[in-house]
Amino acid sequence: MVKVAILGYGVVGSGVAEVLANHLDSIARRAKEEIRIKYILDVRDFPDSPFADRFTKSFDQIVNDPEVRVVAEVIGGLDPAFDYVKRCLLAGKSVVTSNKELVAAKGAQLLKIAQDNNVNFLFEASVGGGIPIIRPISQCLAANDVIEIAGILNGTTNFILTKMIREQMSFEDALALAQKLGYAERNPAADVEGHDACRKICILASLAYGKHVYPEQVHTEGITKITLQDVEYAESWGGVIKLIGQVKKLEDGRIQVAVAPMLIDQDSQLANVDDVFNGILVRGDATGDVVFYGKGAGKLPTASAVVADIIDCVKHFKARKYLYWEDGVKDYVLPYEESVVPVYIRAHAQDAEAAAVKAEELFGAVRRLYRDNAPEEELAFSTNQEWSIGDIKAKVDQLEQSGVTVDAVIRISDL
Amino acid sequence: MVKVAILGYGVVGSGVAEVLANHLDSIARRAKEEIRIKYILDVRDFPDSPFADRFTKSFDQIVNDPEVRVVAEVIGGLDPAFDYVKRCLLAGKSVVTSNKELVAAKGAQLLKIAQDNNVNFLFEASVGGGIPIIRPISQCLAANDVIEIAGILNGTTNFILTKMIREQMSFEDALALAQKLGYAERNPAADVEGHDACRKICILASLAYGKHVYPEQVHTEGITKITLQDVEYAESWGGVIKLIGQVKKLEDGRIQVAVAPMLIDQDSQLANVDDVFNGILVRGDATGDVVFYGKGAGKLPTASAVVADIIDCVKHFKARKYLYWEDGVKDYVLPYEESVVPVYIRAHAQDAEAAAVKAEELFGAVRRLYRDNAPEEELAFSTNQEWSIGDIKAKVDQLEQSGVTVDAVIRISDL
Repeated sequence: MVKVAILGYGVVGSGVAEVLANHLDSIARRAKEEIRIKYILDVRDFPDSPFADRFTKSFDQIVNDPEVRVVAEVIGGLDPAFDYVKRCLLAGKSVVTSNKELVAAKGAQLLKIAQDNNVNFLFEASVGGGIPIIRPISQCLAANDVIEIAGILNGTTNFILTKMIREQMSFEDALALAQKLGYAERNPAADVEGHDACRKICILASLAYGKHVYPEQVHTEGITKITLQDVEYAESWGGVIKLIGQVKKLEDGRIQVAVAPMLIDQDSQLANVDDVFNGILVRGDATGDVVFYGKGAGKLPTASAVVADIIDCVKHFKARKYLYWEDGVKDYVLPYEESVVPVYIRAHAQDAEAAAVKAEELFGAVRRLYRDNAPEEELAFSTNQEWSIGDIKAKVDQLEQSGVTVDAVIRISDL
Repeated sequence: MVKVAILGYGVVGSGVAEVLANHLDSIARRAKEEIRIKYILDVRDFPDSPFADRFTKSFDQIVNDPEVRVVAEVIGGLDPAFDYVKRCLLAGKSVVTSNKELVAAKGAQLLKIAQDNNVNFLFEASVGGGIPIIRPISQCLAANDVIEIAGILNGTTNFILTKMIREQMSFEDALALAQKLGYAERNPAADVEGHDACRKICILASLAYGKHVYPEQVHTEGITKITLQDVEYAESWGGVIKLIGQVKKLEDGRIQVAVAPMLIDQDSQLANVDDVFNGILVRGDATGDVVFYGKGAGKLPTASAVVADIIDCVKHFKARKYLYWEDGVKDYVLPYEESVVPVYIRAHAQDAEAAAVKAEELFGAVRRLYRDNAPEEELAFSTNQEWSIGDIKAKVDQLEQSGVTVDAVIRISDL
């Protein structure tokens, strides 16, 4: 029998306890050991919980108990999670976590400590909730060069965009609905500003290319500026707007990485990933495109991924799993200004036709886009050519100097 | 350094050699060992191959060489593949295979031999080509009860159906095109009659529920009888026709399993899996629906899955991987006649309106379906209620006795 501890009894933590209890036999069969919860750490009391006798408020009790072989950290955030995880690894315990903030900020460091102490540090639940993605990338695709990873990594923003696209709801109304349904926090910044998606693409990029990518290195835009006009123009262009986290390997060894709203072609496999679902596309040189789809969050999906990691730790006490990346290096990430992309632009001007002529002067041939009941001053187009983000900014400035007001600039993805 | 042998230098075998050679360094990093091809078994000569010095025509040379630790069987079929795989396992070598016919027919037996000899028998490439699916089901979903698995498991038939749906090509023309493009064999029976999909759902069912399911136990229909009329009616119903392999666990411990064309709702994640792509939906009690999508066949995708298994064998010489199911038992599969489903029916009669009245008498309320330029005698409908396949057959007989000719009966899926 293997004894485990759960740090944090919030939504995910209570789910982990529930999944472990409800699947006791099948888990024992898979892990070849019975897995029992010895401690649950929480500052609160849960006298009515079926696990009432396991609660403790003392992390020291857990870290000093040699019987505890695996610890599930589901507190979230960096403090005290980082300190707890580090001390557990140093004490020779394997750790699993759903904490994307922790892995995105401290992954390389914690993987190194795990390696030095011959224990495992696993985090399948940190990306895509219940969707298996960390394991498939690290194992099944081992015989591939990963050319690119791109995904809809945040369910809350995808829900909001879906409501805007399908029901012409405004961003504000869709956000309010998401909050009402419990999909969005009262302070929704981490979701709608793209920070959550950023942490996840950092983890995937680090895993796929072997060097840590830090959130500060990643250009991150959210969806707060997306309007219903943009949604309409995206449709007339032939696609939808999605918040995409994307990373590509460049020929010079650097990577190009960003989180931003992008226009996605309607035929792309990511275009139909709607509501709170996540979809992650992995493009390998041998496999071609492989897409993983499912609920990216939620108590039980996330908990089941945490438990799968616990099982994997139990199966790998002797032969450590290979899951590792090095620390990041300076200049590893292409400066965002140098990314080369086509874009969609929405603008208005007293003379929209003259503005269109000016746009073609600056961007080369463009494709004009139209929507019903657009004001006469409105102008929207997609560029046929690709330009660097730096060039695009300069051209937008020039366009504005000619008396045009640019209201939206959104990348067009190649997905 | 680990020495491996490849049995068969056809499409997949040459791909395996290519992937191993092209990714030498990254594979060595993942496997923590360099992996070298020592032998390639083929009856033919390949004097111009970069691996010319590794070819042998003697299986005995391979099985008797203790240096060979892992063998990749990519010959296909049962004879001599089954004998070769068995002897390699008995000789203490781990075996990986892409051979779905072998795994579907002999999986339980080979897994037992592998277990008894403390070696691994892996077959990620046997289902879904380059899509990781065996590993995710067996590992990541360990903390789930798998409620259902359903998938588009055969790229050739999916290509044909896509051409019928999108370009109104007839079945015969679409098949001819698939053959011209190299997607279908000159003898396409294994694909279009559903046998290939059947083998794959057998493997997934065996894996998910722990007991071997044999192809003979699975009701299998192909797509040869699907017409453009059915495609049109499916559209007016609100979906598409796809060839689906599906397995569900029943409350009494038995399983319900079949391969058949089914009407799929347009909003289902499987409805947009087009062309030669495969899509596999796994419904877990904790994860909810998770979908895996990618190219289900092809030289490099399949080869990369074989190589991923080779790597996994190398990493698990000491701690064997848990991948196992028992032999099948009688009465484990629900008789097909007892499956309960709604259906779509297309028929014709001198008096179509009278036939519709008769249909409602038999099936309860039905939804009439319409298409442009349908002959007056034609009648199509979907049932609102579910009926057992046995009842449906009886009702169809009664309908025919009343002077109606039934031209098509297709299941409606709940996906």
